[in-house]
Amino acid sequence: MVLPDAVVASVIPTAAIIGILFAIFLWKRVSAIQLTGGRLISSQNGREYLLEEEQRGGEEEVVAKAADIQKSISEGASSFLATEYYYLGIFMVIMSVVIFSLLSIVKPEDGRTHNDEVRNGIFSTIAFVLGGATSILSGYLGMQIATYANARTAVEARKGIAPAFMCAFRSGAVMGFLLSGFGLLNLFLAISVFAKFYGDDWRGLFEAITGYGLGGSSIALFGRVAGGIYTKAADVGADLVGKVEKDIPEDDPRNPAVIADNVGDNVGDIAGMGADLFGSFAESTCAALVISAVSSLGQEHDYAGMMFPLLISATGIIVCLLTTFIATDLKPAKIIAEIEHTLKMQLIISTLLMTPVALGVAMWALPAEFEMSVPSSTPDKAFDTKVVKSWYMFVCISAGLWGGLLVGLQTEYFTSNRYKPVQDVADACRTGPATDIIFGLALGYKSCIIPTIVIGVAIYVGNTLAGMFGIACCALGMLSTLATGLAIDAYGPISDNAGGIAEMAGMGEDIRERTDALDAAGNTTAAIGKGFAIGSAALVSLALFGAYVTRARIDMIHSSILDPRVFAGLLLGAMLPYWFSAMTMKSVGKAALAMVHEVRRQFNHIPGLMEGTTRPDYKKCVAISTQAAITEMIAPGALVMFTPVVVGALFGTQCLAGVLAGSLVSGVQLAVSMSNTGGAWDNAKKYIEAGATEHARDLGGKGSDCHKAAVIGDTVGDPLKDTSGPSLNILIKLMAVESLVFAPFFYNCAHGQGLIFDWLGWTQ
Amino acid sequence: MVLPDAVVASVIPTAAIIGILFAIFLWKRVSAIQLTGGRLISSQNGREYLLEEEQRGGEEEVVAKAADIQKSISEGASSFLATEYYYLGIFMVIMSVVIFSLLSIVKPEDGRTHNDEVRNGIFSTIAFVLGGATSILSGYLGMQIATYANARTAVEARKGIAPAFMCAFRSGAVMGFLLSGFGLLNLFLAISVFAKFYGDDWRGLFEAITGYGLGGSSIALFGRVAGGIYTKAADVGADLVGKVEKDIPEDDPRNPAVIADNVGDNVGDIAGMGADLFGSFAESTCAALVISAVSSLGQEHDYAGMMFPLLISATGIIVCLLTTFIATDLKPAKIIAEIEHTLKMQLIISTLLMTPVALGVAMWALPAEFEMSVPSSTPDKAFDTKVVKSWYMFVCISAGLWGGLLVGLQTEYFTSNRYKPVQDVADACRTGPATDIIFGLALGYKSCIIPTIVIGVAIYVGNTLAGMFGIACCALGMLSTLATGLAIDAYGPISDNAGGIAEMAGMGEDIRERTDALDAAGNTTAAIGKGFAIGSAALVSLALFGAYVTRARIDMIHSSILDPRVFAGLLLGAMLPYWFSAMTMKSVGKAALAMVHEVRRQFNHIPGLMEGTTRPDYKKCVAISTQAAITEMIAPGALVMFTPVVVGALFGTQCLAGVLAGSLVSGVQLAVSMSNTGGAWDNAKKYIEAGATEHARDLGGKGSDCHKAAVIGDTVGDPLKDTSGPSLNILIKLMAVESLVFAPFFYNCAHGQGLIFDWLGWTQ
Repeated sequence: MVLPDAVVASVIPTAAIIGILFAIFLWKRVSAIQLTGGRLISSQNGREYLLEEEQRGGEEEVVAKAADIQKSISEGASSFLATEYYYLGIFMVIMSVVIFSLLSIVKPEDGRTHNDEVRNGIFSTIAFVLGGATSILSGYLGMQIATYANARTAVEARKGIAPAFMCAFRSGAVMGFLLSGFGLLNLFLAISVFAKFYGDDWRGLFEAITGYGLGGSSIALFGRVAGGIYTKAADVGADLVGKVEKDIPEDDPRNPAVIADNVGDNVGDIAGMGADLFGSFAESTCAALVISAVSSLGQEHDYAGMMFPLLISATGIIVCLLTTFIATDLKPAKIIAEIEHTLKMQLIISTLLMTPVALGVAMWALPAEFEMSVPSSTPDKAFDTKVVKSWYMFVCISAGLWGGLLVGLQTEYFTSNRYKPVQDVADACRTGPATDIIFGLALGYKSCIIPTIVIGVAIYVGNTLAGMFGIACCALGMLSTLATGLAIDAYGPISDNAGGIAEMAGMGEDIRERTDALDAAGNTTAAIGKGFAIGSAALVSLALFGAYVTRARIDMIHSSILDPRVFAGLLLGAMLPYWFSAMTMKSVGKAALAMVHEVRRQFNHIPGLMEGTTRPDYKKCVAISTQAAITEMIAPGALVMFTPVVVGALFGTQCLAGVLAGSLVSGVQLAVSMSNTGGAWDNAKKYIEAGATEHARDLGGKGSDCHKAAVIGDTVGDPLKDTSGPSLNILIKLMAVESLVFAPFFYNCAHGQGLIFDWLGWTQ
Repeated sequence: MVLPDAVVASVIPTAAIIGILFAIFLWKRVSAIQLTGGRLISSQNGREYLLEEEQRGGEEEVVAKAADIQKSISEGASSFLATEYYYLGIFMVIMSVVIFSLLSIVKPEDGRTHNDEVRNGIFSTIAFVLGGATSILSGYLGMQIATYANARTAVEARKGIAPAFMCAFRSGAVMGFLLSGFGLLNLFLAISVFAKFYGDDWRGLFEAITGYGLGGSSIALFGRVAGGIYTKAADVGADLVGKVEKDIPEDDPRNPAVIADNVGDNVGDIAGMGADLFGSFAESTCAALVISAVSSLGQEHDYAGMMFPLLISATGIIVCLLTTFIATDLKPAKIIAEIEHTLKMQLIISTLLMTPVALGVAMWALPAEFEMSVPSSTPDKAFDTKVVKSWYMFVCISAGLWGGLLVGLQTEYFTSNRYKPVQDVADACRTGPATDIIFGLALGYKSCIIPTIVIGVAIYVGNTLAGMFGIACCALGMLSTLATGLAIDAYGPISDNAGGIAEMAGMGEDIRERTDALDAAGNTTAAIGKGFAIGSAALVSLALFGAYVTRARIDMIHSSILDPRVFAGLLLGAMLPYWFSAMTMKSVGKAALAMVHEVRRQFNHIPGLMEGTTRPDYKKCVAISTQAAITEMIAPGALVMFTPVVVGALFGTQCLAGVLAGSLVSGVQLAVSMSNTGGAWDNAKKYIEAGATEHARDLGGKGSDCHKAAVIGDTVGDPLKDTSGPSLNILIKLMAVESLVFAPFFYNCAHGQGLIFDWLGWTQ
């Protein structure tokens, strides 16, 4: 049974709009928590806890202080994003010119006309701008919500764990649903509008649509890198002077870098992560579309079949919506021990619910059998065809879906301090920071095993069943529960900020304990989110890579690892994540040093600062982070943006194929190990601080030598887990999507041989 | 002009024997330095410095003490190697049975008979045993020489830099020449004897000879891993309690782990490194031989042409011999500032001299034109042929030779404390260990760029000119100056030990300063050596990989990165170095913790230990390191040994091809970054300690906070640079050579489809 076109054309935007409306509904509920005005009016769910808190004095004062701090954070974040987006605006204008120029000058071949190429240039550019704008919007909205919710979470924490958790989680969900709703809606509208101009040329249409993915990812790259540098420069700088030298607690308002640190959580982990996952969504959908455009689905103009990727995302939004109710209304976390469990259940439930839905969509949207074009294994033709059954696609979606869950759960195992790996790392702190770091690095390396196997199996299954379309569907499956993934991911930095605000507003030890517990769970969910992000990035990149190979007319023979160009490319590609990480790590280090000097200067030269009688100059630190982030994002950004163009044009499409594959297989490992190592160090520190078990207390708690060692590990982990690691996802995706968009141009450079090799006469 | 067979057949063994004789000659000169008996009799070169030292008192006592310590170290090393080799003996027996069984049961095809397969099984096994035995011999001899030379270097340091330098360097050269001489001689003899049994079947002969490489490398793997764990468990354990907790200097005789630490330098850096580079030599030669056996050289029974790889190694020995004279007699280092320069000049001069020699060998040994078989790019035949000119091979050898030099020099730049990168890392210690580690990691990542480009270019040039034979010749070129490389490499741990002995024998501050300077240069040369080792390992593995692909009958189409098996293999392969490193890092961490507990126990429970009135129980620490090394080498060893067999037999030859390529491209980066990061941390610490410049003194010197931070970085770097990093070379080489040896067996498993895929019916 195949769905009628009209149903498909209405289901997709409807689901997207429902998602957006749901986000607005959640926002309303969060905004019921008032920060200003006289008495604190609680949300309904919190009422039961309010009584015990009412006898406390100074209510209004504390709330006013929290509101004040929130304002500073919000202003800092807005002003940074404004600066960042200003430069990204310039970048987008330049890049638009480049895209249009390189694609329009392509010499038409195979029955295409000059007009076709110009049209491709124009629409690719429009799609690029649209993708970039959606990404900017996603990041901006996410930041707005997060900075709106952080103080409210802190205020709610005074009533207990449940209301605070609900506030943070709902706010995270606002972001998740807004982002997935807008992403899907914009893409759907773009396709519908473009179709008016492309008519029957579906292949051309969807090739132009890939610009959407490129736009989304290139903004995400800069967002991630700049946000990551911003947040970690502030965090590392604040910790090095505050915790290590001055022995004042984290988020102490006397620390001049504390506002910058809290701003950083929002611009890095919220805006950056949002843009990253939006990019993954956009790219996996584009990859699936461009591949299926050359299949029998595209050739026979099967609208429902073509829209299969969007239908998966649309139904995913509804599934996530139902799942969210469980955490917010049916079974919210009420005690500390339940937080992690509740968040984990979100992932499990959304996966469970999505599975039958995916089966339904595969059965109803796809014809029982269709044909995919796969790269030819004989030199005399361009494509072989492969017969695909509709239930194959259900298998692919499920492989991605369940694979994502598995990666998430194993990430939890390696980064949560309820399990042995992190406890071992904490234990290694007994002999000082060196063993802490050795054990942490080993943990990160080890945590690569399962994700790699999962992704490897997904790739094998997807490719065997349906070629590169299968792999794209694996990625879509992994991202189908994106809204939930984003919700639990955004929950982390919101809780982190809430903790900071609680500390700065002087809310007392017990409140801080609650926000710390929320935050510890947030660290784990952040690591899970990064696991998802890197897993989906790997699959997405491979699907894009497959589409690129097709578009650049590379066959099986010319992509052999025995080919010297391909192998040299593989090796160089495997090096790129290291080069990139060297830049981003060094940037954080340099910026942190600058921050340390400023913080020290303020402590030394502002009288009364240490005693808490004078306010530090927060703005100076914010300015240092902003400056560092904007300046330092250029070099790594340029590396990623230029490499595909330079390699593709000068050394040919085959060499570029090697580079893409090499950076993919090497980048995945580096990204996973960096994220998990960093997450583990952070939670090992929290484990020692919280002292929840006999073993943890035995390590000495806050201020002990063990704790000092753990703080050092945590500081090393900061740039690994929040700057370099997550940026690598984007590196591999972005290079792939860029190669796909520019593939016709590369092919135009000496028929894909590369200008240098062509000039040297080394063509094949 | 082609050399007559008789000349070739005499040049190779003659050069090998000259190398061995030269080593004996150098040993004689080192042994002129007497440790026992009454008065110290100096070597000739030292006489001029003796006068100033003669007025010192307690000469005899100090020398006797040094001799005593040397005895302990030598005994410890011998007893550890005896234990290690006992287990390796068992391993070799089991492995021999496996090799013989798997190769003999292969069902004969293509005109081969059952007897052919059995013969292949027998001779492969013999070659394996011979390679393993030569590797064991190399490691053992290296250790003997090093433990013989360490105390003599310390004693000579009392006379000045020059005699000490000469003693250490000559001893290193003894090892270099013995090892390259024996390696070449044994291989040549094996070929000559095997030829009696193989007659005209050169292809079969050289396929069986690859067992030599497998034997060399599997022993090297265990040697590297066990030695690496041994040395770093002791080093980290000793430092954590001694330097950090008790604030006693490095190598203080009161530290119970000090003997184990010094033993470790010998079993890890000397025996392990020797076995590693011998393995590279054996494998690159085997790869070149097995590839050229199927070329027109092999088919037309061109003896001189076939022996080209051995001729390069033979002439290399003579070139290195001449180069050595420069450092030992013509222009030895006389002041501290000259040490690094002298060592560096060794590399440059040997490269310069080798270049015309390589041209001569290529012109005289090879026919002006010959044909190489390269994997076919059309499905209907197995091979294409490629016409190769003799001067092409000169280009390949030179690419490897000069590429190696470049890698060496850039490694020096990144790890020597005379340049900015290490100074930046030292500077980052101002803000504590966390920034030290962040900057160090970034430095390691960055240092991957140039080696990768160099190897990439070498691969491209080699493969374009002469297919996989070209790549094997690049590797041979890089290893042609092996004797010199090994000499400057072994120089490091000998100086390190000398420093330890000087400290323990109480030779005084000025002597210790000299040995420290020797040692600092040794750190850099060790890093250079590791750069060579990893560069050559990459080329060797790729050449072996090419030979494997040929022997497993994989064509261009079936090695496409678009093939799901190949790509899944690539991804899994890229993960293996991480898995392996996780194991080795964790092992070092665990063993170091055990060591720390023992050292603490001794300090707490042996009265008078801290005051120096009682001797610690050194043996207990030696036993802990031995135990840890032997136990912990099994799991990583098994991972490397089993992976190719399991993947090849169960998932087929294509998937294995992906695994090999993936582990190669990812392992190179990880190994380079680990080695250089560790080397940089070590030398940043030495930079602060030595305080040779204004900037260095500004950091505070020994005991300052900066120095403490640097010690932590150094400790983290220990397992990275001496255990995990260097073992990765062997991982990638060993998996490749093992795949090559077992290729007929894999092909026999369902025609290379893999038993699992065959059982599932998923064959292609």
